[in-house]
Amino acid sequence: MTPLHPRKVHLFTPGPTPVPDEVLRELSAPIIHHRTPQWQEAFGEVLTGLKRVFGTEHDVATFASSGSGAMESAVANLVRPGDEVVVAAHGRFGMRWSQMAERYGATVHLHETERGQRPDPDEVGAFVASKRNTRVVFCTHSETSTGAVSDAQALAASIKAQAGDDVLLVLDAISSLGAAEMQADAWGWDSVVAGSQKALMVPPGLAFASISPRALERARETTSGRWYLDWPKAVDAHRKTPPSTPVTPALTIVLGLRVALGIMFEEGLEGVFTRHVRLGRAARAAVDALGFELFSPDHDSSVALTAVRVPEGVDGTKIPSKLKEYGVTIAGGQDDLKGKIFRLGHCGWVNELDVVLMIGALERGLVELGIEIEPGAGVAAAQRSFLATGVEVGA
Amino acid sequence: MTPLHPRKVHLFTPGPTPVPDEVLRELSAPIIHHRTPQWQEAFGEVLTGLKRVFGTEHDVATFASSGSGAMESAVANLVRPGDEVVVAAHGRFGMRWSQMAERYGATVHLHETERGQRPDPDEVGAFVASKRNTRVVFCTHSETSTGAVSDAQALAASIKAQAGDDVLLVLDAISSLGAAEMQADAWGWDSVVAGSQKALMVPPGLAFASISPRALERARETTSGRWYLDWPKAVDAHRKTPPSTPVTPALTIVLGLRVALGIMFEEGLEGVFTRHVRLGRAARAAVDALGFELFSPDHDSSVALTAVRVPEGVDGTKIPSKLKEYGVTIAGGQDDLKGKIFRLGHCGWVNELDVVLMIGALERGLVELGIEIEPGAGVAAAQRSFLATGVEVGA
Repeated sequence: MTPLHPRKVHLFTPGPTPVPDEVLRELSAPIIHHRTPQWQEAFGEVLTGLKRVFGTEHDVATFASSGSGAMESAVANLVRPGDEVVVAAHGRFGMRWSQMAERYGATVHLHETERGQRPDPDEVGAFVASKRNTRVVFCTHSETSTGAVSDAQALAASIKAQAGDDVLLVLDAISSLGAAEMQADAWGWDSVVAGSQKALMVPPGLAFASISPRALERARETTSGRWYLDWPKAVDAHRKTPPSTPVTPALTIVLGLRVALGIMFEEGLEGVFTRHVRLGRAARAAVDALGFELFSPDHDSSVALTAVRVPEGVDGTKIPSKLKEYGVTIAGGQDDLKGKIFRLGHCGWVNELDVVLMIGALERGLVELGIEIEPGAGVAAAQRSFLATGVEVGA
Repeated sequence: MTPLHPRKVHLFTPGPTPVPDEVLRELSAPIIHHRTPQWQEAFGEVLTGLKRVFGTEHDVATFASSGSGAMESAVANLVRPGDEVVVAAHGRFGMRWSQMAERYGATVHLHETERGQRPDPDEVGAFVASKRNTRVVFCTHSETSTGAVSDAQALAASIKAQAGDDVLLVLDAISSLGAAEMQADAWGWDSVVAGSQKALMVPPGLAFASISPRALERARETTSGRWYLDWPKAVDAHRKTPPSTPVTPALTIVLGLRVALGIMFEEGLEGVFTRHVRLGRAARAAVDALGFELFSPDHDSSVALTAVRVPEGVDGTKIPSKLKEYGVTIAGGQDDLKGKIFRLGHCGWVNELDVVLMIGALERGLVELGIEIEPGAGVAAAQRSFLATGVEVGA
């Protein structure tokens, strides 16, 4: 087969995701200092924009870190040694809450949902209610390891209804924020954490935590065990006029994020979310048409990625490797799912035509690997999915 | 006075520092995934290059964070609640060690050196020896708030000679690494921490900690109180073939750092260090010729910045503000030094001609502020300083 162009590459992983050219150009602008009006104005805009995306009127703290740093900030600021917490995990990244909470000395009550499935809100609420001393509940929105996205609104409502309103609720929305609606205040999440490198369309290295007033109060009660990830320190600096940071920020990524948020608001958040739903539907339709099984339920909530079961007898790790020959990066499975699933990312700077290209690459790879499919069936199904609901092709 | 070009800017702060065009272009390359051979190869090169700059054959852990994150990693991995530690501070950033260690439950014995001065190695050694239960000593190399750079080799030697070899030694070299020689192994520093946005010529958001085998062993003894900044987790991932990271890395900054390290190695580390000495000498000569007093001793070790006393009766905050009108950013004083000093950064991607420009901007600002100087005296002194020792103009 004729080789494809070796320098023309396509990124379809659930993070990092492709970054718009306009943002890339911003990243390569000459460095400015962070105590200048130019940077402060940009940072102020970013903080305001983030609040819209998080659905909060309260604080969003920023950290130069990966998304895991923002997760740990929630643990470090809310958990004291000896505290009882609930972790409702539905995959690998849910389990990370548990590892972190244990490292901070918490007693963890673990509620596990089968991998690939979404947690049942009623069940999680009842579980929390049964652990009467629970101070904090940690949940995952989009579980990047499986593609299953929990119902964040129903989860919070159920926990509050069954376990009362005193418990603090924390949500990992790293791979969903900006792809799916988030209403931190209205739904009652005391903290939602996210990272820059998923639907927000900038490189990794910047992370966020929304913080409700009562969560901030809890954080102010003790200051031990953390400095860099301290919420009060970040919030107090961000609230200043002009807004500031306690340490040197990831300044180029902040500048890039201003541009990326501008692109999102131009499309309209509603439009962004609708686009992601449509991308997910088409990816699932294509996978189905190729005779593969989805690993997670066929549900409109799966906006960030589509996880696909590898047929029995096939070494699934070969599929991402084969696609790399075309300059196309998709993700394999992690840990015990390695070789058993592969993951198609469609999150952030991805439009409907990109999904057609991605399925084209997948079909080609499967054919070359000798896995029996009908070439063209996937791309045709994706096209039909898009055109069935109108021709409004997204950004 | 005719306005200068509003979009032509010059950055002379002790961090962030200017980034070479070649690095900026690398930052704007399309995003690649971090589990690809292309990125892994770059990361491997960066790890090898960093070891050269740190002067270590052992591990260098990397974190997506500001330099303060790497500082905190040393505290979080080496300090247990109740431990006695010594902090030898000679300025604001030295005091940060103390704040962090206290947050991790340490009993801090604080040795303070007057701001602007360098700590006396004999005295620090004796101080540590007098605190018999000291487990870790935290020091600062280049104190960014004052420009004074400690003698890292003599400090370590004196502490070891007087207090024995059991105590762990940790050094903040955030604003010196890459500007001045560092021999972590040979000098006996168990951990040296640094950040990306100073002499290493990339944007902020990536930080490093070199780790001696015995420091790593200490870190492995307990895992509580940290997850994101955990040394063993980072080191174990970095040691893999191909090298990896426990979480999504600050991947664009890593790619930029490969290019920046290439630029440094092309000049030769010896050449890089010599250039910084020459830049510092010329800046100090210019300041002196303009009739200003240095805040720190006139010493070849002051490679990253030159701190200058503001004359009595002058509001020193006006000097950086005035220079901003020319698109030139220098730094003022921090905390109680605000208005009393200003700081000229000459670190990283700065050559001898840049220093002439910087002094030109300073003279111009002083004249416009009505501060009596002889226009041209500063730039002439800088030129004489450079030419006195030959015409080899740096990179």
